[in-house]
Amino acid sequence: MDTLDILRQLAIIIIAAKFFGLLARKCKAPQVAGEIIAGLLIGPSLFNLVESSDFLAGMAEIGVIILMFTAGLETNISDLKKTGIKATIIACTGVFVPLLLGTLLYMVFYGFSSIGTEEFYKAIFIGTILTATSVSITVSTLREMGKLSGELGQTIMSAAIIDDVIGIIVLTVVIGFKKPDSDVTGVLLRTLAFFALAIVLGIIIYKLFKWYDNRHPHTRRIPILGIALAFGLSYVADKYFGVADITGAYVAGVILCSLRDSEYITQKMDTNSYIIFGPVFFCSIGLQTNIRTLDMTILWFSLAFVAVGLLSKVLGCGLAARFLGYRGHNALKVGVGMMTRGEVALIVAQRGLKAGMLEPAYFTAVILLIIISSILTPLLLKALYAKDPPEQAEA
Amino acid sequence: MDTLDILRQLAIIIIAAKFFGLLARKCKAPQVAGEIIAGLLIGPSLFNLVESSDFLAGMAEIGVIILMFTAGLETNISDLKKTGIKATIIACTGVFVPLLLGTLLYMVFYGFSSIGTEEFYKAIFIGTILTATSVSITVSTLREMGKLSGELGQTIMSAAIIDDVIGIIVLTVVIGFKKPDSDVTGVLLRTLAFFALAIVLGIIIYKLFKWYDNRHPHTRRIPILGIALAFGLSYVADKYFGVADITGAYVAGVILCSLRDSEYITQKMDTNSYIIFGPVFFCSIGLQTNIRTLDMTILWFSLAFVAVGLLSKVLGCGLAARFLGYRGHNALKVGVGMMTRGEVALIVAQRGLKAGMLEPAYFTAVILLIIISSILTPLLLKALYAKDPPEQAEA
Repeated sequence: MDTLDILRQLAIIIIAAKFFGLLARKCKAPQVAGEIIAGLLIGPSLFNLVESSDFLAGMAEIGVIILMFTAGLETNISDLKKTGIKATIIACTGVFVPLLLGTLLYMVFYGFSSIGTEEFYKAIFIGTILTATSVSITVSTLREMGKLSGELGQTIMSAAIIDDVIGIIVLTVVIGFKKPDSDVTGVLLRTLAFFALAIVLGIIIYKLFKWYDNRHPHTRRIPILGIALAFGLSYVADKYFGVADITGAYVAGVILCSLRDSEYITQKMDTNSYIIFGPVFFCSIGLQTNIRTLDMTILWFSLAFVAVGLLSKVLGCGLAARFLGYRGHNALKVGVGMMTRGEVALIVAQRGLKAGMLEPAYFTAVILLIIISSILTPLLLKALYAKDPPEQAEA
Repeated sequence: MDTLDILRQLAIIIIAAKFFGLLARKCKAPQVAGEIIAGLLIGPSLFNLVESSDFLAGMAEIGVIILMFTAGLETNISDLKKTGIKATIIACTGVFVPLLLGTLLYMVFYGFSSIGTEEFYKAIFIGTILTATSVSITVSTLREMGKLSGELGQTIMSAAIIDDVIGIIVLTVVIGFKKPDSDVTGVLLRTLAFFALAIVLGIIIYKLFKWYDNRHPHTRRIPILGIALAFGLSYVADKYFGVADITGAYVAGVILCSLRDSEYITQKMDTNSYIIFGPVFFCSIGLQTNIRTLDMTILWFSLAFVAVGLLSKVLGCGLAARFLGYRGHNALKVGVGMMTRGEVALIVAQRGLKAGMLEPAYFTAVILLIIISSILTPLLLKALYAKDPPEQAEA
C-alpha cells in the first residue's frame, strides 16, 4: 500500500467510525458497535472502500495496546484492597462459569475433543472471550439512577475490575498453550515468571516514575514514558515469556495506576485513542469480517453464544451474590450488572485470531453479544430497581 | 515486519527521541535536532536497533500531515490582513533570495544545467528547502526580552507566516514539475485549480464546521472531523492535482484556523503529535540518513548550504526592511529574526526525497542548518538589541 493511499483510507475510517458511532449512541447501543459496523460497511462485506493491510494491522495493534494500557491505568489498587472478599468471590464465579459454559457450547456445536488437542483449545478460547465484563454501561446506568455509590453499585464495580485481572490471567495461560513449545508446566512457569518479574520490576519502575512525577508533574514526559513502558512491556511479555502482549500493556497500566498523574496519562492516551487508533482498531475488526462468508451454523452458534454469554454471567455472579447474602432482586441485579461485554471481549477475540485459535467468522458472535448485552443491561437493571419497594432497596 | 516488532521499535523510538530532545534543549539547541540525532544513533549509522520500514514510513507520513495541519491551524487570517504590505514584501524577498541563492549553490557544486532538466529541478529544490522560516525560536527570544509586542516583533511574526504560505506555493509548483506528465502550463493550471477548489470548498467547509462547532463546541467530533479533512484534502491534492500532500494538510488547517475551536483542535493534534507521530517522523529522518555514506563533497556542500541559508535570509529580509524604512540595527534584526529554520525545512526535504528530487545524504545539510540557525539566532538577536541606546529601540 503506498503512503498516499493510507491518507485516503484513514479519512474514510475516521469519518465512518465517528458517524456510525454517534448513530449507535442515538440508538442506545454502544459506540463501539457503530464503529465495527462502519468497518463492515466500508470493508469487503459491502462497499469495499478500504481493505485490511499490514499497515492498518499495525495501527490497530497500537490501538489495542493503548486501550489495554488505559484499562490498567484505571484500576484502583487501594480500592481493590478495601472491597475485600465479596467482590473477589463474585468475580471468580463470574469468570469461571462463563469460561466453562462457553467451552461446552463450542463442544456441543463442533464435537467434544480430548484435552490438549487443537480443537480443545479453540473451545476453551470461546469460553475465554466470555470472561471479561465491561462495566461502563452498568456504571452509567447506576449513576443515572443514583445507585452507584450504594453498596451494590460498589460491589459490582469492584467485581468487574477483579474480573478483568482474572480474565487477563486466564487469557495469558490459554494463549501460552498455543505457542509451539507449549507444555503445561512450561506455560505455567513462564506465566508465573512474567508476573514475578512484573511485580519486582513494577515496584522499581513505579518508584522511579513517582520520583520523576513529583519533580516534573504534568509534563509531556510522563505520558511519553508511560506509553513507551506499555509498548516495551508488551513486547517483552510476548517475546520472552509467551504471554499475550495485551497482558504486558495492562500490567504497565496497573504499575502506573497509583501515580499522582495517572489521570493525566489516561487523558493523553484517550486523545490518541479516540482520534486515530481507536477508530482504526474497531473498524479493522469490521474489515476482517466478511458477512458474505457467514453460514447458518455460524449464525446459530452466534445466537447460542449470546444466550450463553448473558446467562452464564447472570448465573455465575448472581448465585455467588445470593450465597453471599444478597436477597430478593439484589442478587439478580449483581448478575445483570455484570453481564455487559465490551472492548475487552473484542480485544481477546482479536488476539485469538492472531494466535490462530479463532476464525474471523466468530467475530459476528462477539459483536452481537456486545450489542445485545449493552442494550439489555440498562433496560433490565431499571426494571429490577423499579420492582424495589420505595426506600427499601439494597436491604 | 511483524506487528510485535513494531512495539519494540516504537518503544525505542519514543524513549530515544524524548531523551535526546531534552538533552538538545539543555544545550540550547532545538528539541527536533535531538530527535533526529536519536534517529541517527538508533539507526543504521550506529546501533542499528531500528530500521526504516514501510510501517514507520506510513506513521511518519501521518506525522507530517498532522504537523502541517497544525501549522495551518495556527495561521491567523485576520492578523495577516492587518499587517499589510510591509510584512508581505519582507516575506517575498525572504523567499526569493534564498530560493535563488540555494539554486545557484547547487549549480556551483554540481554544474550548471539548462532549464527543464532533472538536474535543474534538483538545484531548484535545494533553493526551495531554504525558503521556509521557522519563527518559534525568534518568538521565544523576543518574548524573553520583552520585545515581541513591539512593531518589529509583529512584523517578523507576520512575515514568517506569509513566508510559510509563499513557501508552500513554491514547493507546490516545484513538486508539480516532477510529475511524469509535467509541462509548465499544466502544472500551473493544476496548481491554480487546486487553490481555486480550496477556496470554494474551504468556504463551504468552514461554514459547515462553524455551524456544527457552535452547536457542539469542545466535542471530540470537531478534532476528529478536522483530522479527517486534513487526510482527505492531502490525498485529493496529491492524487488529482499533483500538488504536494502537505499543501493539502496546510490548506485544511488554514480553512479551520478561524474556527472558535481552532485552538482546541490544535491542542488535540499536539497531543497526538508529541506522543507518537512526531518522534516517529523526526527519528525516521535520522534513520534514513546513514552517516557512514557521507563523502567530503557532501560535507563541504553542507557547510556552504548552511552559510548560504543564513546569509540569504539576512540579506533578503534585511535589505527589504532597510528599503521599507527600518534604520540602524533594526533592518539587521529583521533579517536575523527570519533566518531560523525548523520542522518545515525538514518536511520539505523529506517530500523531495519521496519525489526523487533529493538524496538522503542532503538531510545532513538541512539538519546542520536547523541546529546552527537555532543556536545563532538568539545569540545574535540579543547582541543586536544590546547595542541599542536605551529607550531608543525601534526608532
